[in-house]
Amino acid sequence: MMDVLEALRLDELSHGLANLSMFPYFDMAHYIVSTMALREQPGALEVSRVSPLACWFSSMLFCFGGAVLSGIMLAEPTVAPLSNSTSVLLASVIWYLVFYCPMDLLYSCAALLPLRLVLSGMKEVTRTWKVLGGVTQAQSKYKDSLLVMIAIGWARGAGGGLISNFEQLVRGVWKPESNELLKMSYPTKITLIGAVLFALQQTHYLPLQKHHLMLVYTVFTVVNKSRMMLTGSSTSPFAPIESALYKTLFTGHSPYAALTEEVKQACIDNGTTTNKPTAPAATKESSGNGSTSGQQHVTDSAVRGRNSSPKAKEASENAVTTGCKKTD
Amino acid sequence: MMDVLEALRLDELSHGLANLSMFPYFDMAHYIVSTMALREQPGALEVSRVSPLACWFSSMLFCFGGAVLSGIMLAEPTVAPLSNSTSVLLASVIWYLVFYCPMDLLYSCAALLPLRLVLSGMKEVTRTWKVLGGVTQAQSKYKDSLLVMIAIGWARGAGGGLISNFEQLVRGVWKPESNELLKMSYPTKITLIGAVLFALQQTHYLPLQKHHLMLVYTVFTVVNKSRMMLTGSSTSPFAPIESALYKTLFTGHSPYAALTEEVKQACIDNGTTTNKPTAPAATKESSGNGSTSGQQHVTDSAVRGRNSSPKAKEASENAVTTGCKKTD
Amino acid sequence: MMDVLEALRLDELSHGLANLSMFPYFDMAHYIVSTMALREQPGALEVSRVSPLACWFSSMLFCFGGAVLSGIMLAEPTVAPLSNSTSVLLASVIWYLVFYCPMDLLYSCAALLPLRLVLSGMKEVTRTWKVLGGVTQAQSKYKDSLLVMIAIGWARGAGGGLISNFEQLVRGVWKPESNELLKMSYPTKITLIGAVLFALQQTHYLPLQKHHLMLVYTVFTVVNKSRMMLTGSSTSPFAPIESALYKTLFTGHSPYAALTEEVKQACIDNGTTTNKPTAPAATKESSGNGSTSGQQHVTDSAVRGRNSSPKAKEASENAVTTGCKKTD
Repeated sequence: MMDVLEALRLDELSHGLANLSMFPYFDMAHYIVSTMALREQPGALEVSRVSPLACWFSSMLFCFGGAVLSGIMLAEPTVAPLSNSTSVLLASVIWYLVFYCPMDLLYSCAALLPLRLVLSGMKEVTRTWKVLGGVTQAQSKYKDSLLVMIAIGWARGAGGGLISNFEQLVRGVWKPESNELLKMSYPTKITLIGAVLFALQQTHYLPLQKHHLMLVYTVFTVVNKSRMMLTGSSTSPFAPIESALYKTLFTGHSPYAALTEEVKQACIDNGTTTNKPTAPAATKESSGNGSTSGQQHVTDSAVRGRNSSPKAKEASENAVTTGCKKTD
Repeated sequence: MMDVLEALRLDELSHGLANLSMFPYFDMAHYIVSTMALREQPGALEVSRVSPLACWFSSMLFCFGGAVLSGIMLAEPTVAPLSNSTSVLLASVIWYLVFYCPMDLLYSCAALLPLRLVLSGMKEVTRTWKVLGGVTQAQSKYKDSLLVMIAIGWARGAGGGLISNFEQLVRGVWKPESNELLKMSYPTKITLIGAVLFALQQTHYLPLQKHHLMLVYTVFTVVNKSRMMLTGSSTSPFAPIESALYKTLFTGHSPYAALTEEVKQACIDNGTTTNKPTAPAATKESSGNGSTSGQQHVTDSAVRGRNSSPKAKEASENAVTTGCKKTD
Repeated sequence: MMDVLEALRLDELSHGLANLSMFPYFDMAHYIVSTMALREQPGALEVSRVSPLACWFSSMLFCFGGAVLSGIMLAEPTVAPLSNSTSVLLASVIWYLVFYCPMDLLYSCAALLPLRLVLSGMKEVTRTWKVLGGVTQAQSKYKDSLLVMIAIGWARGAGGGLISNFEQLVRGVWKPESNELLKMSYPTKITLIGAVLFALQQTHYLPLQKHHLMLVYTVFTVVNKSRMMLTGSSTSPFAPIESALYKTLFTGHSPYAALTEEVKQACIDNGTTTNKPTAPAATKESSGNGSTSGQQHVTDSAVRGRNSSPKAKEASENAVTTGCKKTD
């Protein structure tokens, strides 16, 4: 009796959620959190003073990056997001208020933890819709091609992060040694998982109803996000599974096992992200060090190995030595 | 009586202009000026010796960059420009003559101020057609979406400049710290304004007839360009309006006001461009310094802030110190 | 009598070749050789430990780069290759075995010269099919536009190399000073020649039957590739023709003639490639030096000339001095 009632209530709830409209409130939350994430990028404020246009374009990439990326992947106009005047106008107004509001009102309010918690939670909700939208769009073009559905769903949900290298380029920042594929951030991971789940559901490999999966996934993302914001911890809930999978699959031949472990550790230790605005200083620190030791292996060896010009060699050698000095 | 006659004459004139065909003479002027602009890029001549192919591809990007960029934005084939054999052939012949002509005849002739004045003027005329073409093309795809029309018109007219980072990459040059959005050059600005005007005209927000607007815009660009070439000054005519707009809109919260002013100054001081071949040494200098002090804020702070690897830190610190030494 | 028989036999042979199916064996060879080429990139193994995903994506770009690039050029979905599940699955399995196989079995076997010879030969065969596929695809879109047909055929056949800058970016490596246009590798050259030949054949400028051209081109590539692997020499068979063409066409005005020669020499001396896995240490050396002296001219002068920030200036000056120190 009880669980029947519960089931009914859950069913209603999931149906209610599935019929929820993202516009305008949830979209707004997404724009606010994204633009604040941009503003918290080092150097972003200076850019906003030097060139408002570059800053605006950058924040549009933060807000609509997913649509742009999936547009490129599906050969659909990348300007399409601009054609939805209402959203662009809304995002632009929020961008303006976040960066140039007199007394910096909006930012200082939205930065208060409780409000920020709510906004981030609402942003996580939009993720479900974006991923699902991407998956269904891909399905309409490529009948039951699971990989394409996952790819597009992922691109739609985590686009901003995946194209971050080029978003940074707009602001005059270029960091080739790091990208979301080399070291996935938590939002990128959770989005990938979501894309896989929804793709499986759409192709009926996953015996679940869409609105149920939407409810489960949304609740999980929101709860997990809030947990991370409150505890300030950046350890993804998948760390154990990941390292288990990693140990079983990707530690094939021995010579690199040692290196592997330590590097992997460095990578598991930190799961912070380019567009997670809430990582407190502490986390930022750890992630900083983590990525240092983590990337060092990649970039240095890569640079040392690949560059044939003495110039570059010199550079990378300096890098190493100074790196050592620094760490001493 | 007089002004009726004048009106009639103006009307005739504007109609005549509107029916003017860009091919072949104006297109040729555009190709010559663009290729000369490429040739005047530091390092371009060396590239033309090391790899004629890279040099040819680069100059095609200078000549047809707008079409390529708008192609990407509208998901239309980026090879489309190649399909117009006549234009490509014409541009290639000019490219060959500019770079490899025996005795360097073509370049030394075209570089003479009077001839260069004429050619640059004709190139400015093509700008009107390109912007209008982009706007109408966008309109045919996205009914009255003002933003898209502006974006495509701008891309068509100033494509070469907007993709300069990647055009440079073809020649083995990579300057992430600068791009046309961070510091707009005069041609990019004037093209953006043109795109806005034509988009407003096409959507009937601007109570003007197309051929009249074409006349006005063309005359303005040609006259202004000639003025800048003759006086050798690179101050854009919009500087006052810009700084006024800037002061009212983008100087929101105080902490950065100071920084803002000085930086902005640096940016207003210079309006030179990657594809304006006529900036005399003097201007180049000033622009050089300008961008130095202008970008410094952006890149350094950005780099210092963003990079987590000691290598990069070291680098940027050096940069600062050497920067100081240099400026002392 | 004899030559009639021979003609018949050749005709049969060419028909047999033309009807040969690339899937699965030749495709497999292509995937194995490409993935091994990736694995032999300095730093690639570290990446495979740090981020299997980035490594997988990188190797997919090595295997399907041509399809991706031609997709961008023709405004067709860049995810299309993913929709062919069988190929992607096959390529992924091979990627896994090459990088993570217990005891490193696959790699150590495939690296044995005789086996590698066979695999590389089979990979060369796939080139013919890819180029021809690109040319015909372009022809179906752009009736007899020779340039487009060549461009797409080239992109399809040598895509992996042409996008190498961005493939490297996935792995956190960024080498703007070098790209396939600045210094073409042997595979890129041979593919370009093939694209030209097949484009001419398709437009009937070349009085040859398709299957005959396929036979001739395939035999040439396979034989030449094997020769280079066995002799370990990387001198392309076109070196003399190239330098002749170069001398006649691209040594226009004198001041650079001197520079030209020495630079060109450096470029002719080496024809190694990003995706040619078999260049022995010796060749790598020579190519290293070659590119050093060759690129130096380009990058340094370029950098010194173009950068306006003292930081960059300092850097390039250091580069030069150290460069001199090194060579002393």
